[in-house]
Amino acid sequence: MKKKENEEYIILAEKIEREKLIDKMLNEIFLRILSQIRKRQNPFLEIPARKKEVVVYDEEKDLILLKKILMKRDFFNMKNVRKFTQTVAVSSTITELLRRNIHAQLRDIFYNRAYIFETQNESDAIIEDIAAMMGVYRENLGVIASAKGVCVGEIKIRDKGDLIDCSRLGTGGWSITPLVDEVEFVDYGAEYVLVIEKDAAFFRLVEDKIWKKQKCILVTGKGQADVATRRFVKRLREELKLPVYILVDSDPYGFYIASVYKRGSIQLSFDTPRLATQDAKLLGLLPSDLDKYKVPKYARLKMTEADIKRLSEISNYPWFKNKRYQEEFQLMLERKEKAEVQALCSKNITYLSDVYIPKKMEERDWLS
Amino acid sequence: MKKKENEEYIILAEKIEREKLIDKMLNEIFLRILSQIRKRQNPFLEIPARKKEVVVYDEEKDLILLKKILMKRDFFNMKNVRKFTQTVAVSSTITELLRRNIHAQLRDIFYNRAYIFETQNESDAIIEDIAAMMGVYRENLGVIASAKGVCVGEIKIRDKGDLIDCSRLGTGGWSITPLVDEVEFVDYGAEYVLVIEKDAAFFRLVEDKIWKKQKCILVTGKGQADVATRRFVKRLREELKLPVYILVDSDPYGFYIASVYKRGSIQLSFDTPRLATQDAKLLGLLPSDLDKYKVPKYARLKMTEADIKRLSEISNYPWFKNKRYQEEFQLMLERKEKAEVQALCSKNITYLSDVYIPKKMEERDWLS
Repeated sequence: MKKKENEEYIILAEKIEREKLIDKMLNEIFLRILSQIRKRQNPFLEIPARKKEVVVYDEEKDLILLKKILMKRDFFNMKNVRKFTQTVAVSSTITELLRRNIHAQLRDIFYNRAYIFETQNESDAIIEDIAAMMGVYRENLGVIASAKGVCVGEIKIRDKGDLIDCSRLGTGGWSITPLVDEVEFVDYGAEYVLVIEKDAAFFRLVEDKIWKKQKCILVTGKGQADVATRRFVKRLREELKLPVYILVDSDPYGFYIASVYKRGSIQLSFDTPRLATQDAKLLGLLPSDLDKYKVPKYARLKMTEADIKRLSEISNYPWFKNKRYQEEFQLMLERKEKAEVQALCSKNITYLSDVYIPKKMEERDWLS
Repeated sequence: MKKKENEEYIILAEKIEREKLIDKMLNEIFLRILSQIRKRQNPFLEIPARKKEVVVYDEEKDLILLKKILMKRDFFNMKNVRKFTQTVAVSSTITELLRRNIHAQLRDIFYNRAYIFETQNESDAIIEDIAAMMGVYRENLGVIASAKGVCVGEIKIRDKGDLIDCSRLGTGGWSITPLVDEVEFVDYGAEYVLVIEKDAAFFRLVEDKIWKKQKCILVTGKGQADVATRRFVKRLREELKLPVYILVDSDPYGFYIASVYKRGSIQLSFDTPRLATQDAKLLGLLPSDLDKYKVPKYARLKMTEADIKRLSEISNYPWFKNKRYQEEFQLMLERKEKAEVQALCSKNITYLSDVYIPKKMEERDWLS
């Protein structure tokens, strides 16, 4: 899946005006089909392919992207008629969302058109088709996914006229909106962004007010990050020019979660340019940290067969091919040990905030 | 599991001063054992039993509670020595948390004492033992669980000196803190609390600003509610005297989630008095709503065998024995149909905010 010469990618419009998009939907779907019918043609739409085979990794750009290959979806065709009809029906729901300027979740759309779908997977796929056709992100169509991220720290955000000071939200924090592209960063005192995999570690850092001492913005995606959280981090990086550091468990899954923040995922290759924070640093927990910070043996876990298999998969990802990553993978493989961030509690409940993070930052001890 | 005459329950102290609790830990655990040793006794602790057999449903109080039965845990006893040692070790970690006035998660405690535990279940159980012994809630010991709830609406909350206006948090909302007992309700314009099972429906209501039109506070526990979210709802009910309404899917699982808000769960019977919002109303989605609001057949789902089995279990819960509930169960069983709240999107994406909720509230159409 390497990139070949003069291949065309699908790069979606970063932002498109609602009015423009409504016209685009009308012209390129409804009026187009209408004129095809008038011309007594077999009505058809052209949908960009999104299957695994067209996913490419661009080493130069260091991004997972999608090759531009159009597939014909026509009406007078037993193989396509069902999908063709679904596409047109969902397009009209989406046009309504845009006209009313409201948002719906994937599942809402499924129910809104449930009479022509058997499963939500079907309707989800059709929505992605329409987004690809329009050359926009699904969110631009008013179709959003639920967000589970939380943010605390030295930043003020404007969301629908409300000014939210993320340093004044107690020990809870701001629940990141699914409409993350509509918020505005007003003002910030932070010097970096710290993304934490798990909300347990996140809460410890919030209670210890590390964001105040370290002048940073804390974000957690509560495990595998959702699209809104990834987009939020990407925007903090791009618009505020803040360096981003990621704190995950020292296991293959942690490395993977970090890589999704950095390079995007294969499932959403499509969204990569908008979601990937390529130069985010992996701060830890690194396999080499376990000895360096003397994490006692009893707080380390033995890797399972599945872990080891996953590790070998990950270490073959092209974007993990650099020396430092491979060294860490090697070490993990030799030791067959993994550890959660909370393993640092074996030393002291506040060790993470008092010692680990300040020391890592001071020594600039991270993977690029 | 009916309640018998003159049975003693475990009713935990609603709130206890940290200093007092530290003394209690010292006297009732450490000094007690010390004096037992000095007297050349076999050191022992008395732990309240928490097994299923001691769980009782008090019809009068309409709560799931725990009978008070003390079990001896002694040192010179091959059966108990391990647990005895674990109890003492964890007690000292907890005393440290209290002295430093910081909080840790269950998993943090496990790692902090990992050398004497094989699994986290072991350490979780010991922590519950200590809480029961001290007659306080686990949270009073400084041991918290992560919270996943979100709140939006007409209320101001003070949390660690920060004043949070939940009507000014854009489309995201306030991520409910795990330290929910430490927040203070400053001021509110709301007339009721609406608890929404799923965050998809929650977001639609937030975007439609129903909390403004209906003057309410919206809370979601994002599925099965965590302890912090349940406690938060309970406090809104008790301290602000606001009526609480619950919106869940029309399926056995939805009924169960509602009942956990209302009556507590068997696993946490222990926490019931503090978590259960007994007089919360089940607003919907009721099986009878499906016809009443003309939810099209294609937006309803067929119940699985598992659903039907679960339904018969639930309909036998003593606190569901009232007529209206049984009617709804009966209807669901006859139709063998279930439906998610989003099924209302089949009519119109904003039907939930524009029609369903206002109409239900106006007609006072709910289950007590």
